[in-house]
Amino acid sequence: MDFTLSPRAADLLERVRTFVADEVTPVEPEAHRRILAAREAGGDSWTPDPVIAELQGKAREQGLWNLFLPAEHAGRYAADFGTDGGAGLSNVDYAPLAEAMGGSMLAPLVFNCNAPDTGNMEVLLRYGTEEQKEQWLEPLLRGEIRSAFCMTEPEVASSDATNMAATAQIEGDEVVVNGRKWFSTGVGNPDCKILVFMGLTDPEADRHSRHTMVLVPRDAPGVRVERMLNTMGYYDEPLGHGEVTFDDVRVPASNILLGLGRAFEIAQGRLGPGRVHHCMRAIGLAERALELACRRASSRTAFGKPLANLGGNRERIADARIAINRSRLLVLHAAWLLDESQRAGAMSIEALSAVSEIKVEVPTMALGVIDMAIQLHGGAGMTDDFPLAGAWVGARSLRLADGPDEVHRNVVAKIELGRHAAARA
Amino acid sequence: MDFTLSPRAADLLERVRTFVADEVTPVEPEAHRRILAAREAGGDSWTPDPVIAELQGKAREQGLWNLFLPAEHAGRYAADFGTDGGAGLSNVDYAPLAEAMGGSMLAPLVFNCNAPDTGNMEVLLRYGTEEQKEQWLEPLLRGEIRSAFCMTEPEVASSDATNMAATAQIEGDEVVVNGRKWFSTGVGNPDCKILVFMGLTDPEADRHSRHTMVLVPRDAPGVRVERMLNTMGYYDEPLGHGEVTFDDVRVPASNILLGLGRAFEIAQGRLGPGRVHHCMRAIGLAERALELACRRASSRTAFGKPLANLGGNRERIADARIAINRSRLLVLHAAWLLDESQRAGAMSIEALSAVSEIKVEVPTMALGVIDMAIQLHGGAGMTDDFPLAGAWVGARSLRLADGPDEVHRNVVAKIELGRHAAARA
Amino acid sequence: MDFTLSPRAADLLERVRTFVADEVTPVEPEAHRRILAAREAGGDSWTPDPVIAELQGKAREQGLWNLFLPAEHAGRYAADFGTDGGAGLSNVDYAPLAEAMGGSMLAPLVFNCNAPDTGNMEVLLRYGTEEQKEQWLEPLLRGEIRSAFCMTEPEVASSDATNMAATAQIEGDEVVVNGRKWFSTGVGNPDCKILVFMGLTDPEADRHSRHTMVLVPRDAPGVRVERMLNTMGYYDEPLGHGEVTFDDVRVPASNILLGLGRAFEIAQGRLGPGRVHHCMRAIGLAERALELACRRASSRTAFGKPLANLGGNRERIADARIAINRSRLLVLHAAWLLDESQRAGAMSIEALSAVSEIKVEVPTMALGVIDMAIQLHGGAGMTDDFPLAGAWVGARSLRLADGPDEVHRNVVAKIELGRHAAARA
Amino acid sequence: MDFTLSPRAADLLERVRTFVADEVTPVEPEAHRRILAAREAGGDSWTPDPVIAELQGKAREQGLWNLFLPAEHAGRYAADFGTDGGAGLSNVDYAPLAEAMGGSMLAPLVFNCNAPDTGNMEVLLRYGTEEQKEQWLEPLLRGEIRSAFCMTEPEVASSDATNMAATAQIEGDEVVVNGRKWFSTGVGNPDCKILVFMGLTDPEADRHSRHTMVLVPRDAPGVRVERMLNTMGYYDEPLGHGEVTFDDVRVPASNILLGLGRAFEIAQGRLGPGRVHHCMRAIGLAERALELACRRASSRTAFGKPLANLGGNRERIADARIAINRSRLLVLHAAWLLDESQRAGAMSIEALSAVSEIKVEVPTMALGVIDMAIQLHGGAGMTDDFPLAGAWVGARSLRLADGPDEVHRNVVAKIELGRHAAARA
Repeated sequence: MDFTLSPRAADLLERVRTFVADEVTPVEPEAHRRILAAREAGGDSWTPDPVIAELQGKAREQGLWNLFLPAEHAGRYAADFGTDGGAGLSNVDYAPLAEAMGGSMLAPLVFNCNAPDTGNMEVLLRYGTEEQKEQWLEPLLRGEIRSAFCMTEPEVASSDATNMAATAQIEGDEVVVNGRKWFSTGVGNPDCKILVFMGLTDPEADRHSRHTMVLVPRDAPGVRVERMLNTMGYYDEPLGHGEVTFDDVRVPASNILLGLGRAFEIAQGRLGPGRVHHCMRAIGLAERALELACRRASSRTAFGKPLANLGGNRERIADARIAINRSRLLVLHAAWLLDESQRAGAMSIEALSAVSEIKVEVPTMALGVIDMAIQLHGGAGMTDDFPLAGAWVGARSLRLADGPDEVHRNVVAKIELGRHAAARA
Repeated sequence: MDFTLSPRAADLLERVRTFVADEVTPVEPEAHRRILAAREAGGDSWTPDPVIAELQGKAREQGLWNLFLPAEHAGRYAADFGTDGGAGLSNVDYAPLAEAMGGSMLAPLVFNCNAPDTGNMEVLLRYGTEEQKEQWLEPLLRGEIRSAFCMTEPEVASSDATNMAATAQIEGDEVVVNGRKWFSTGVGNPDCKILVFMGLTDPEADRHSRHTMVLVPRDAPGVRVERMLNTMGYYDEPLGHGEVTFDDVRVPASNILLGLGRAFEIAQGRLGPGRVHHCMRAIGLAERALELACRRASSRTAFGKPLANLGGNRERIADARIAINRSRLLVLHAAWLLDESQRAGAMSIEALSAVSEIKVEVPTMALGVIDMAIQLHGGAGMTDDFPLAGAWVGARSLRLADGPDEVHRNVVAKIELGRHAAARA
Repeated sequence: MDFTLSPRAADLLERVRTFVADEVTPVEPEAHRRILAAREAGGDSWTPDPVIAELQGKAREQGLWNLFLPAEHAGRYAADFGTDGGAGLSNVDYAPLAEAMGGSMLAPLVFNCNAPDTGNMEVLLRYGTEEQKEQWLEPLLRGEIRSAFCMTEPEVASSDATNMAATAQIEGDEVVVNGRKWFSTGVGNPDCKILVFMGLTDPEADRHSRHTMVLVPRDAPGVRVERMLNTMGYYDEPLGHGEVTFDDVRVPASNILLGLGRAFEIAQGRLGPGRVHHCMRAIGLAERALELACRRASSRTAFGKPLANLGGNRERIADARIAINRSRLLVLHAAWLLDESQRAGAMSIEALSAVSEIKVEVPTMALGVIDMAIQLHGGAGMTDDFPLAGAWVGARSLRLADGPDEVHRNVVAKIELGRHAAARA
Repeated sequence: MDFTLSPRAADLLERVRTFVADEVTPVEPEAHRRILAAREAGGDSWTPDPVIAELQGKAREQGLWNLFLPAEHAGRYAADFGTDGGAGLSNVDYAPLAEAMGGSMLAPLVFNCNAPDTGNMEVLLRYGTEEQKEQWLEPLLRGEIRSAFCMTEPEVASSDATNMAATAQIEGDEVVVNGRKWFSTGVGNPDCKILVFMGLTDPEADRHSRHTMVLVPRDAPGVRVERMLNTMGYYDEPLGHGEVTFDDVRVPASNILLGLGRAFEIAQGRLGPGRVHHCMRAIGLAERALELACRRASSRTAFGKPLANLGGNRERIADARIAINRSRLLVLHAAWLLDESQRAGAMSIEALSAVSEIKVEVPTMALGVIDMAIQLHGGAGMTDDFPLAGAWVGARSLRLADGPDEVHRNVVAKIELGRHAAARA
């Protein structure tokens, strides 16, 4: 057992951290204020702040680009698209980089490592045709365009993905797409050009073979963004979460991903590493919150003492440290199990459980730490003067996105009960 | 022991509930959408929606006005200002009315029972001179103007009120006010005309005799609202929380409340009933959230069952019911202890503890219930399509406003330890 | 709304408290030590300590006897059996007395107010024939004999009472009783003379009409106590929890309670007030634990400070105070709802929910407070030098006895969901 | 990063697991029943059950003996004392073996890997003179004798070790030992021959240089075991926790460990790996509890369904799996940090924090899992028919033993705050 990072990962981690600390964190408050000001003035808060493109250029120059790109595909795209000259990283090596980016709202975008683009790029890498890759994957890898993932629907309990009612039906050599999606993340960005849409194709088929994934260009006739949703008051510019209607949208059948009725297969593959990334970024948020809490606790004084010396504040700081450390190890282990599964060529039951375990554990852990930090900041913690309120909302959303806690708990329990039943048999 | 409401309170409760259900709840979503639209369009989101004045008129006509007005003062103002023909209510009788209003964001305003105006009116009732009452209290009671309370400061840990550094100093027959306040609730409203300001007068005096409360007209030269704060993305129009600077603001010495150095005395008196109101409104929020949760759990289906029949959802609904009921009783008991204290002419130690107990208990309870309801709503729960996200933010703020949990826990513990020490001695 | 105790209840409370403080608490440690010593020496730990009979005599003399006896029956038995000259108490008036007794392990027995005898006496009062009353109720009221309640079985999930598999079958004018029961509380006491047994009579009947309750004398041939169970190492002498087999035990059909197949009817009636008593005693335990915690926190020193001034200890004391207060109010309200139901002649849905609510809320609350007190006592808290470890075990058992938390949560949720469904219809 | 066990550790783990499953678990209930029966009959429950010596013989034959023996010392003792022919294990390699033993109450003793003997052996290995090693270490390694650790005192808050008031004073070439200790674990065993005693030598010295550790033979005149303590009713035979008085006990000065005033130095060294062992054993307990819970949930039926399908039971099983996994990784990481510190020749600040982190995290985690399992077992879970009640008590004690949670939280917080202060400076 060895908890040391590989030399390459350690080097990248150092470089990502430095980049975030030196280049991203200092400009973030101002960039956030510009968005807020634009929104308050009824102006355009959606066009990405110019500082993003500038930082993306620097990151790419330094080889800190597309670092999420998995090992098995890196060979082909690494040289062209800037992933540090070659081999991709394993999940366990990439995970700490995701954490280092996650403490900042801007950083994932700066390194072209933000959701949902990473997940969509992985889908295209794994399941895309050559033509699909050329048309959509390559500009995504270059950061020239953005993408969205259109799955969840307002009218059904989307925690059960088989509930999805929007349709993707074959007519001749076209797919006709109809329905209403929401929480289509990324769709607010003017650069968003391609939507990965999941729709019902054959209601009579087996429960997990009814749905199909289709690539729908953002500008296809019949696609309309009805509104941008806020989550607890946050619009998450410049990506945002949209409610999107598809009204008889027609795209060529060649836009189908993997095949008719194979959406679940894709979703499964897409979500494993994606959940590791989400969780590691959430750990980055929690670390940032703990750092801010420690600073505040040491610098503010009440009742004649630094806050750190009052009541249970130290205990809460200790609990936060413990919670973050244990969660990080759980995610790293899940990442390693995914790597082992990839080496073995098949997802292990341990990896399957682990991915659901982190999805339950990490967001709630992060919420606890961030909430503690907010409390230590007093009213200021609720405002946008600190990144805590926004971080809380992000972590809260993560208890729902990519499967709510309840669904993941059920996966874990099923595997656990099955394991003991098998042991007895 | 008798848990029955007095006939008068029961009658008012029925009428307030009916009014809220029939008049307020139906118009609320649209009113909220108008605010949001105005804000998104960079327009004026601060001028109160016309529906508020309309509803206020109806409420006043029906005698549902200024119901918070305490018994001892009702005699004088009741007839003039519409409190149902006379006698004010005890705290324990008013509390359920506050709950009935609290489930709605608009209702407290509609009944002229919203913070911070109720607290400010109570201060004026108790400590105001005849002149102050005439000038500020009477228009407040008529709902013609609004007020704000300016205590918390960005630069110091305001949980320790003795930290307040803004100054209120006597020069001749004037008070000169300087400093920066924030979370001055109510200051965003164009009708806000008067600020209750707390400032440092004599840094050498005893810790609790250093500060003075002063009435500062909103339009006094030198008063500037620097910005309206959002809390987790919410601006809470049409009241809002402002950051306000006072630059050499001069008001006549007759604007001092109660006397130089007597701010703490006032704050104590102001906050007891105010905390009961806050807590009962938070219970109203929690009830509303539980109702929405039950509806959603019964109406949405996943994995072939209503959500109510999945996993631990029923247990969570039961826990929410238990939590709300026990918290409500704790607040009612605190209200009753305040009434007993008022009857006895002095705040009892039990009442003092009880007010801090509810301040710790209720907001966290409400947060738990609302969070559960959000989770049951999925992504929708995070949006403004339901009042849950806003309710959560309101309850979260309440863990900080009027003294953070930590300060109140300390009050409770001190009394508890003191009681046992006394018993042993 | 009025939280004042009735004068009679207030007087009794004062007298019970004084009796417990002056007579019971001082002799308790020594009595406990004698039991422990007897057990360690393999001697008789089951014969009640002589101090109990002595204290019972004093209590009875002072009219502090059978105080649980409900109002509707007190008339008849009060004079004869010593309940203070007459009228019984309502649930809400008795509840604080149960709390005052509950802080001591001995006290409930001393006042003839201990489970399961109180529940069994209530069953006999309500459902017993004159003959049954004469033979069993009257000696129980005099404290001459003890009883046990035989319901739970080792071989089935007893949380679902319809699972009970032991049989009570009619043969001619006899009932034949067979099966194995456990957690038959009270059966360890040599004075235990009568068992209230619940058995399956008609497996084909409606789910809630299959079982019958039968009075089985302890010395009936075929009754055997197989062993006394410990719960976490505690045997709870002198009552104890037995595993009891019934091997073709024959009793006259006149020993049937209420009628064949009517066990559930009885169980429902028996358990409402019983749960209030259990919960109030648990609150008494929690108060005792908090008192001990405060004493320890004030009297022990570490790192140069009293424990009370270290870390989060004060916060924990405050949380304990809050938790106890809110739970007590919840139980008092449930007691009042039971009283209202009795006045109305039928159990209200509110009362039904409330009884389940307290059964979920109170034991877990008490466990939290007691655990905190144990932690403050260090290793000593785990020993029998303090009553904390035993109190914890008692409260833990209460999360299972009389229906586990899960069953009660389900009752509460069902009522809650039903209420909202009804409101919508 | 690599989570694979070393081949040697994997092989030993497999063998230990098989040994426990095949040899220890099957005989455990009967052994426990014999102890209980002896205790109930007032007989000798302290002489170790013969099955222990028998199993120890088998374990030693199979080379499963003294596996805790650290790498740096194994060379010398391995061959002689049976540690599988040679090299000792790193902490990270031993940890899973401790977990495999921890699920059984007997197993640690069977493998000669039980507290407090392992800790005492490590102390002798590191700090003992050749003579001390020969006299005490070697028979301990052979399992011929047992030891106890006498530190905690009833009269002072022992969480602050500098409080210890028992004395160890030099008189000529003797040390004179006086005072009262308790929770002296192991002292109930008739084979216990040596006590490691910590006493105050120089009250004037620096706070951490006042105390000395002395080897006191169990049979030295003046040593008296006053009583064996129970913790929540458990005596933990055949080791037990004793209250021990030392009345003018005189031993040669050569019995001093390391030197006068150096007790803290020893305690620090002793407790790092010891805490890892404790925590891994607690994880073993939690795994065992989860296994029992899953079995019960699958095999018992209520309300027409297996318990596993009722209410929140699956969620609780999932939460238990998550909690165990994350805690295990935290302990393994702490073990690895200790190994790294040993390789570096100095305890790192990360390792120091990690050891305190696991001490806070693991016992509470285990308590939660075990409590859930108890609840799923109903009343049975509270009895000794299942190992759950005893496991709970063991885990609860661990929140106090070797430093209460509060002390460890303080260590973690101090390091955390210090790290951020350093980063800012």
